[in-house]
Amino acid sequence: MLRVERIRNDLETLAKFTSTPGEGVTRLAFTNEEIKARKYLEKEMLEAGLEIYHDNAGNIFGRKEGKNKKAPVIMFGSHIDSVVNGGAFDGAAGVVTALEAMRYINENNIETEHPLEMVVMTEEEGGRFGSGVWGSRAMAGKVTEDEIFKGVDKDNITKAEALQNFGIDPYKVKQATRKPGSIKTFIELHIEQGPVLEQKNLDVGIVESIVGIRTFFVTIKGKADHAGTTPMDFRKDSLVGASRVISAIDTLAREAGNGAVATVGMVTVKPGAFNIIPEEVKFSIDLRCSSNDTITTLSSAIQEKLKQVCSFQELDFNWEERLAVNPVKIDDTVIKAFREVAEEKHISSHVMPSGAGHDAMVMAEIAPVGMIFVPSKNGKSHCPEEWTDYDKVSKGAEMVLGAILKLAD
Amino acid sequence: MLRVERIRNDLETLAKFTSTPGEGVTRLAFTNEEIKARKYLEKEMLEAGLEIYHDNAGNIFGRKEGKNKKAPVIMFGSHIDSVVNGGAFDGAAGVVTALEAMRYINENNIETEHPLEMVVMTEEEGGRFGSGVWGSRAMAGKVTEDEIFKGVDKDNITKAEALQNFGIDPYKVKQATRKPGSIKTFIELHIEQGPVLEQKNLDVGIVESIVGIRTFFVTIKGKADHAGTTPMDFRKDSLVGASRVISAIDTLAREAGNGAVATVGMVTVKPGAFNIIPEEVKFSIDLRCSSNDTITTLSSAIQEKLKQVCSFQELDFNWEERLAVNPVKIDDTVIKAFREVAEEKHISSHVMPSGAGHDAMVMAEIAPVGMIFVPSKNGKSHCPEEWTDYDKVSKGAEMVLGAILKLAD
Repeated sequence: MLRVERIRNDLETLAKFTSTPGEGVTRLAFTNEEIKARKYLEKEMLEAGLEIYHDNAGNIFGRKEGKNKKAPVIMFGSHIDSVVNGGAFDGAAGVVTALEAMRYINENNIETEHPLEMVVMTEEEGGRFGSGVWGSRAMAGKVTEDEIFKGVDKDNITKAEALQNFGIDPYKVKQATRKPGSIKTFIELHIEQGPVLEQKNLDVGIVESIVGIRTFFVTIKGKADHAGTTPMDFRKDSLVGASRVISAIDTLAREAGNGAVATVGMVTVKPGAFNIIPEEVKFSIDLRCSSNDTITTLSSAIQEKLKQVCSFQELDFNWEERLAVNPVKIDDTVIKAFREVAEEKHISSHVMPSGAGHDAMVMAEIAPVGMIFVPSKNGKSHCPEEWTDYDKVSKGAEMVLGAILKLAD
Repeated sequence: MLRVERIRNDLETLAKFTSTPGEGVTRLAFTNEEIKARKYLEKEMLEAGLEIYHDNAGNIFGRKEGKNKKAPVIMFGSHIDSVVNGGAFDGAAGVVTALEAMRYINENNIETEHPLEMVVMTEEEGGRFGSGVWGSRAMAGKVTEDEIFKGVDKDNITKAEALQNFGIDPYKVKQATRKPGSIKTFIELHIEQGPVLEQKNLDVGIVESIVGIRTFFVTIKGKADHAGTTPMDFRKDSLVGASRVISAIDTLAREAGNGAVATVGMVTVKPGAFNIIPEEVKFSIDLRCSSNDTITTLSSAIQEKLKQVCSFQELDFNWEERLAVNPVKIDDTVIKAFREVAEEKHISSHVMPSGAGHDAMVMAEIAPVGMIFVPSKNGKSHCPEEWTDYDKVSKGAEMVLGAILKLAD
């Protein structure tokens, strides 16, 4: 059996490696806090009988050799960096459950056909240099020269400098790229970061897809006029237009179905004075769904509504696409393995999409992937209140352990 | 006849007294720019045969004695301060037309029964110390000790210090209060700051009322959740709620009629991230109408809509009143005088409400008041592009001159 008290101890220990004690976990990539967390994990990984190696992006691997040393590896784990004032579970839960699974395998002298590798990835959040899923992108060969040598953090340190401080040669990051076919399956346990599992009172979620994401910036332009001296009929109020579009986005997303979600999270209103009719409103749109078709239909419907509102109110608008990430379908073999484990171990589960992007989404470009979610209390994440009962983390670990053993044979 | 070239010269000269040359007129109260403008005006007022005196608030008066020295005075003028990066007409137009009227009276040796006083008021805009209509409030006895001795500008200078630099004893401001009955009528010419006169292609507006103003801050509170992992049905999106209320405010104001206007000018969205459902939206509401009843009905309808939207979407809200100014009815005698002048001098006019507050609004507390509007190009004001054709300013001056001569007899 996996030991929940070890999982708990791992999580509590990692939570101490924060630059904001008392205000959640702040463990940005390539910082002293991350170094301390890595040292702790490497010590535990050695004790679990693993052979440790690092790649040229900052990822740590703990390998348990397979009967067939040349067979593609079963890899599992998550990231160790956090957002600013984040929680103790996002990323860390996937790392410590991988570690606990390895301890179990070691203690029970389990041999597998395929080699097993747990991975501790870095900079998934992107809170320091602005673009995330770094560790997995490096493995997928998807990092750019510019992000290494040009982008800087708030202290004006380039990622190249941060890598050097970490003992990594920034000119050799490309060597972290994994050979096609070298990974048989990648599995990641992560907190749900949403309310569904808790509401349904379930132990774990078996992820069937990672949603596609399309994001946009909309700018609506009207005319800045005096709030008192401009009759209603003379107004070109960009905010009234924007409010109609934002309201419609909510309605259209609900009508779209298919689990689609739409969010307007950022709004700026100019000039932003009490007594001036807003000249310009800029807002973000974030659309997500497992189905690319649904996202396309929804974004077209929103654009059509925008056009209608703006032409009716004589406003100008601009529609700018910012990001387009395709949905990822989870491998059926992995889902089948997870379902079997859940049944065997009496773990209650729910097959669901992942609404957030994760390292597994990137890893899907080079290997079949699977994901397990554990419940997030009140759906909260990226905040000090982030919480998952240790019992549920442990059940998630059982799912990962069960699945890797099935897939490694 | 009034001389448009003198009006033009006065306006162009005053526009040079700015702390932001090339970027509009910035002439904040009690600054060197205002001192220069005042010196220029005092020189011109002396040349126009006026007797100059100052009150203890910083207002300048140019008096032309009446046949009956003890009769209540006919006072006319406007303010000389501006907003930051404002225009050359707001306030100044009312001052230079008063001056030109006085020149005409002097040149033509016109005697009136009542004494005439042109007034150059200060700090109508309130851009420096945060609360406006200072000069008129001082005359109405409505200034407070706190605003003199406690409030500060951005350089941490109190109004008391600014007054002292101006040669005014801050402890004696109350002496600026006018005795009840000492002013027979107060008349102010001002730019419209709106689009109506230009659209109707008219020379001047005869103001029949100054609108009442009620302003509010509304806060809507929902729940900050992850944009990807929170299904639509689990959301408490404060921005969706706010957008429905803001959209309804526009509709309700149009339905209210009676010339009512409603503006939401300030909006802040927290936390304001692309991928987080907005937890809190705060926005301003500015309602104006000549009828207090209409404002009351409209604000109740908005509150009711807010309540509906928030209870339906399980959001919390807070409704906070910030400002309530009653509408001012313009004196019928003054309107009649204006109408007669317009007819006699073939000046095209339109009887209309003033949607903005002015010194005349405060002066109405101690005397009957009248206002003349001149057209604003594109309705623009408080910006470098603020413009009124000199010909129209001159026609406004004819209206003022004609009315004061009628009222002073």
